[in-house]
Amino acid sequence: MPDTQIFIFDTTLRDGEQVPGCKLNTTEKLIIAKELERLGVDVIEAGFPISSPGDFKSVTEICKLVNEPVVCGLSRAVEKDIKVAAEALVHAKRPRIHTGIGTSESHIRFKLQTTPEKIIERAVAAVAYAKRFVEDVEFYAEDAGRTDNVFLARVIEAVIKAGATVLNIPDTTGYCLPHEYGEKIKFLKENVKGIDKAIISTHCHNDLGLATANSIAGLQNGARQVECTINGIGERAGNTSLEEVVMIIKQHPGLELYNRINSKLLCPLSDMVSEKMGVVVQPNKAIVGANAFAHSSGIHQDGVIKKRETYEIIDPKDVGADQSKIVLTARSGRAAIAYRAKEIGYNLTKLELDRVYSNFLLVADNKKEVNDQDLFVILKEQNVQGVSATA
Amino acid sequence: MPDTQIFIFDTTLRDGEQVPGCKLNTTEKLIIAKELERLGVDVIEAGFPISSPGDFKSVTEICKLVNEPVVCGLSRAVEKDIKVAAEALVHAKRPRIHTGIGTSESHIRFKLQTTPEKIIERAVAAVAYAKRFVEDVEFYAEDAGRTDNVFLARVIEAVIKAGATVLNIPDTTGYCLPHEYGEKIKFLKENVKGIDKAIISTHCHNDLGLATANSIAGLQNGARQVECTINGIGERAGNTSLEEVVMIIKQHPGLELYNRINSKLLCPLSDMVSEKMGVVVQPNKAIVGANAFAHSSGIHQDGVIKKRETYEIIDPKDVGADQSKIVLTARSGRAAIAYRAKEIGYNLTKLELDRVYSNFLLVADNKKEVNDQDLFVILKEQNVQGVSATA
Repeated sequence: MPDTQIFIFDTTLRDGEQVPGCKLNTTEKLIIAKELERLGVDVIEAGFPISSPGDFKSVTEICKLVNEPVVCGLSRAVEKDIKVAAEALVHAKRPRIHTGIGTSESHIRFKLQTTPEKIIERAVAAVAYAKRFVEDVEFYAEDAGRTDNVFLARVIEAVIKAGATVLNIPDTTGYCLPHEYGEKIKFLKENVKGIDKAIISTHCHNDLGLATANSIAGLQNGARQVECTINGIGERAGNTSLEEVVMIIKQHPGLELYNRINSKLLCPLSDMVSEKMGVVVQPNKAIVGANAFAHSSGIHQDGVIKKRETYEIIDPKDVGADQSKIVLTARSGRAAIAYRAKEIGYNLTKLELDRVYSNFLLVADNKKEVNDQDLFVILKEQNVQGVSATA
Repeated sequence: MPDTQIFIFDTTLRDGEQVPGCKLNTTEKLIIAKELERLGVDVIEAGFPISSPGDFKSVTEICKLVNEPVVCGLSRAVEKDIKVAAEALVHAKRPRIHTGIGTSESHIRFKLQTTPEKIIERAVAAVAYAKRFVEDVEFYAEDAGRTDNVFLARVIEAVIKAGATVLNIPDTTGYCLPHEYGEKIKFLKENVKGIDKAIISTHCHNDLGLATANSIAGLQNGARQVECTINGIGERAGNTSLEEVVMIIKQHPGLELYNRINSKLLCPLSDMVSEKMGVVVQPNKAIVGANAFAHSSGIHQDGVIKKRETYEIIDPKDVGADQSKIVLTARSGRAAIAYRAKEIGYNLTKLELDRVYSNFLLVADNKKEVNDQDLFVILKEQNVQGVSATA
């Protein structure tokens, strides 16, 4: 059986951009949209057109700019929202309207102050109205993560009948455990009439650090689209990280899935988004963090110097990162010192290495990181001859 | 059935501290160790005593300082390492030696250049040697994540016989998917003679963004200890985040697990570790990120103002964070403007709100965030009367 394609739906410019401090102007959005197209995403969620005149303009301009990806505009299940989204998408080669409504008890009772039956009516009406403007209509069941599966299945069945082409099952509050989210998708696959006519999409938030795992659990149970953002930015603790999902699919052939992303562009695009949005990526961020391929303990350095794969499951070049780094700290061992000394031109004998290593530890205990200049000073102090390593 | 206790094993001062740039001096380590004790961790991995004289000293001083938690020192399966670890732990009220060796094919062939049978011999010898010094000996099967389960079971069975009290099953390279890691733990529970005499521990790395999910999968299949760090720091993309695992256990009573952590100290300790190690926590970090409880889209703000639980699954006070934030951006709606205007003393009528909102959007489209001062200027420009909101 051939592998199944997973569609990558990027919402950096919508869910990501709505984050405090992340706002982008239209020019910045266009630059990122073009890079997302180069990266190979299948869908760009470009914005929420009714939210402001600036966002409307950005969606319009992105539609004119990109050719390959579907361009998607967000709306609530409200005619005015949907109409404005359709207007913003008018220049898109492949437009999609994304509309939806809360389906959990909490959202129905406290936010929308209505009844479950009215929710189904409003959901169906919104999808039917959106279909007047575009063929491709995605429906989101907000807070699906905390929605009773039986009711969720009724909503989903109704919107498929109304013409929804994509069904977004968001874990809006980031509450689900992976097995729960996976079972939810499975329940829909098994209990909704007509489910195979549409694509199921995951949209997971990271409030408990589980967004990526939940998305993968969704894919393992029949979802075919993942909504995600560069660097995992998004409301509160953010969304699923695009780079993590893409690399899990790539590194785990056992999943029998594939996607169209050119992974070599992941790190450069992560840098660009971080810089333009002014949101820092922590060094221990998976795939794109500054330390993702750095090794500092002696045990690990020794292993990586012997064979990279002992401690690395991804070749840094595959994600556009610099090569693996051997960083010298007080936890480094002899192998790393010999390796770095060789890099700066010193081939140490065993006796020289012993002498240098003792001295190195004294220096390293007082510094966070020992750089090449520090190492050079130690080598000089120890009167190491330095047989040219390049000889 | 009463809930099962999960032991929290903190390795911030060992796996965390070996990260490039994170080195701490002894005074800093002592401050953090004391806070970890206050937090309620069950085990503090204090360092790798043989790695440097400074680290040896830190472990010694931590042993003198803390009373409640087990203090653990790392070693390779090498007599000299174990002996030095035992010396460093001599003042501990509850000492534990952590020793182990690589068990995956890659580690056996390329790093250790030996055979599977020799690995079992060395593992058993190391545990037996450590037992001469302390009763509590934890064994790690390095790269267990990529180790064949049948061979792993043989190693584990042998070290239990030799006296190991805790069995650490590290996913050293962060490669496992949650269902795979869970099945590995289940396999050991079902196939290792004497497994119930010891505690199984998870130690997951975050290279694919799955460390937390893998740890939880381990607990769901019988592991009883989680190795983790504050802010998820650690080699490369880091370790499992202590704060994420603790809050998942707390927010998901269906797991029937509990731990001793005082969650109200999580955010203050996250700040302290970030500051002392000089490692930034990204704003979209789960639980402890600056935006973890910030709401900026209109839809979410409206919900949270009506009822916090519509978009928040954790009360920020439970993790020592500031209260939920309503941040004004171009994605904010009328409800948020009215809310913030009220906070600064203006009770807006519907007509006033309409006028202010249009003007607000023009300002917000050009700014990342609209602060109270900006809002005050808009209110003044629109000649809003400002019935005192506190009246």
